Amino acid sequence: MIRSLALVALTVLAGPALAQPAPRDPDFGKLEGEMGAANAKPGPRTVPGREIPVPGTVSETFRAAVAAPYRAPAWNANPKDAAGWKELVDKLAKATAAPIPALRDQLGVTSEAAVIGGVKVFVIQPKTIPEANRNRLLLHIHGGGYVYNPGEAGTLEAVLMAGLGGFKVISVDYRMPPDAPYPAAMDDATAVWKAMQAMQKPERMAVFGTSTGGGMTLALMLRAKAEGLPLPAVIGLGTPWSDMTETGDTYKTNEWLDNVLVSYSGYLTPAAKIYANGRDLKDPQFSPINGDFTGLPPALLVSGTRDLFLSNTVRTHRKLRDAGIEADLHVFEGMSHAQYLASPNSPETKSVFGEMARFFDSHLGR
Amino acid sequence: MIRSLALVALTVLAGPALAQPAPRDPDFGKLEGEMGAANAKPGPRTVPGREIPVPGTVSETFRAAVAAPYRAPAWNANPKDAAGWKELVDKLAKATAAPIPALRDQLGVTSEAAVIGGVKVFVIQPKTIPEANRNRLLLHIHGGGYVYNPGEAGTLEAVLMAGLGGFKVISVDYRMPPDAPYPAAMDDATAVWKAMQAMQKPERMAVFGTSTGGGMTLALMLRAKAEGLPLPAVIGLGTPWSDMTETGDTYKTNEWLDNVLVSYSGYLTPAAKIYANGRDLKDPQFSPINGDFTGLPPALLVSGTRDLFLSNTVRTHRKLRDAGIEADLHVFEGMSHAQYLASPNSPETKSVFGEMARFFDSHLGR
Repeated sequence: MIRSLALVALTVLAGPALAQPAPRDPDFGKLEGEMGAANAKPGPRTVPGREIPVPGTVSETFRAAVAAPYRAPAWNANPKDAAGWKELVDKLAKATAAPIPALRDQLGVTSEAAVIGGVKVFVIQPKTIPEANRNRLLLHIHGGGYVYNPGEAGTLEAVLMAGLGGFKVISVDYRMPPDAPYPAAMDDATAVWKAMQAMQKPERMAVFGTSTGGGMTLALMLRAKAEGLPLPAVIGLGTPWSDMTETGDTYKTNEWLDNVLVSYSGYLTPAAKIYANGRDLKDPQFSPINGDFTGLPPALLVSGTRDLFLSNTVRTHRKLRDAGIEADLHVFEGMSHAQYLASPNSPETKSVFGEMARFFDSHLGR
Repeated sequence: MIRSLALVALTVLAGPALAQPAPRDPDFGKLEGEMGAANAKPGPRTVPGREIPVPGTVSETFRAAVAAPYRAPAWNANPKDAAGWKELVDKLAKATAAPIPALRDQLGVTSEAAVIGGVKVFVIQPKTIPEANRNRLLLHIHGGGYVYNPGEAGTLEAVLMAGLGGFKVISVDYRMPPDAPYPAAMDDATAVWKAMQAMQKPERMAVFGTSTGGGMTLALMLRAKAEGLPLPAVIGLGTPWSDMTETGDTYKTNEWLDNVLVSYSGYLTPAAKIYANGRDLKDPQFSPINGDFTGLPPALLVSGTRDLFLSNTVRTHRKLRDAGIEADLHVFEGMSHAQYLASPNSPETKSVFGEMARFFDSHLGR
């Protein structure tokens, strides 16, 4: 403090050295004029093509996911027919499922195929459920653009939640296009949620999912309200596909930057088309952002600064807050869409599931 | 429900129509190959130059701010000497201050120049302070890259908080370079905070600010801890300049997209230089993200999807959470740096100050 004051006095007497303008970044000079001119009038924003470094501000483990190439062949898939879709989906599901048994072992988690409410599910739980969670039950709805991740491939997030959060989780293996477009997936999720009412009290239950699973979680809340079903005590929305139309700023601003989804014009457009099967994507059962959020349970939301669905996430957060719902937002540095699922051993992934487990714990009855 | 089930049955029998791939966006075809090739290996991300539309997902009032051209001449200012800085700062301060008296009238807020702890301040308050806030006091630290917003120009955010939140606010008119580089600004903020201890109990006080004001709020917390001063009950961090080095992903990903700051290589580089006056910008008094957040008060943080400081904000949020601090993040659709201050009558601005007032209310003693 004394040193600081002395310095002020000195500076005020001497004045700071300022004999010339600060030196400019050499790349900046050219773009300053070009972009200044292109953005000198109100309207759309012009941004230059450029190379963006891998940030040093993410964990070393997570850095590999941030640096990874576009996720081929998933990101721009557009198979020419139903057989093409099935072949691609099977191939990707095998690759996604392959490391899951080892992850279950690492986390001390078991998985059992079952049928609940007439629907195929996996019951996933830690070998020992912590005392506080013994009377609690979670419903997990997997992501994958309504086309990817059938079977065991869809259980990754449920395994992480069971292992890192210490919860028993029912993960629904809902039907998908091309065989079963809308409303099959939502019918299945609803049937499981209905059947779970006989297994546990709703105030001791949560529903959660990422991407399509987050969108479906919201759509399930709207459908449960409409059908007079109980709502859970709390929900988890990992970067939810809450607007299936290409509406939201980061569909454009994070296009080509997000290395998981890359672009709405990649696989999402054809996936939305075969799921909707001619229906209007603005319908709240597809785009729950257009629904009425009154009375929804407290929600935790997760996204990343590079996420194509950052706007889906923050628009959902704001709409929940505007409806008076407790809603907790977490945005991760450098993270593309749902990338916490791509790096299960990273501190970032532990933070995501740690935050979700804490939030659930504070809202679930015992 | 019956109709839904009938539809599923029909679909399973007939199979969906899928005779050809989904049609592609015409602009997508070319970029798909180019960007696919440029991003086929691990490493930096290559993104194309492009025009990004004004999003339809922000309020009509706020849309004008989003569509606005780069904020000339502030964004890329780099005056050649101290006289050049003073001329620019005065000119901008006049323009910023001009609409503030009308805003005060509109919000029913008064402003009075005063001296507290030997430092120039403005005491800003609603004509009638709500009952719940009569024994509460807020310290406001204005933004402007440590160079802009002397005098009344620095009170905009305090006027909004007094008017929209119903609080009495002391806004510190701290000294700035070129006349007074570091530590003058921090000495002034600290002196006011010290003097405020004689005015109100710390558990009934909050500190808040945006941009540089958010960074200084954090730096003040670190300095108060180091000097054994009391901490306030709660803090508000509007898109804080928590890392004054160009460290953080959105310094790059949102460069040229944010129409307020535009680029770190714009005015921020020279501003940091004349403020630091040769000191290391990594020092936690400049970049509080490098400090120890243990024991900090609960914090509310605000940013936007286009904000150059989105990474500063979310990195601060995560570091607070990792230190076990209650911290509440709000990210606004399409918003550039601190743009809620540029559109005082927008619903977005009302949401920012509404959230901050609610958060403060829940943490301040009465």
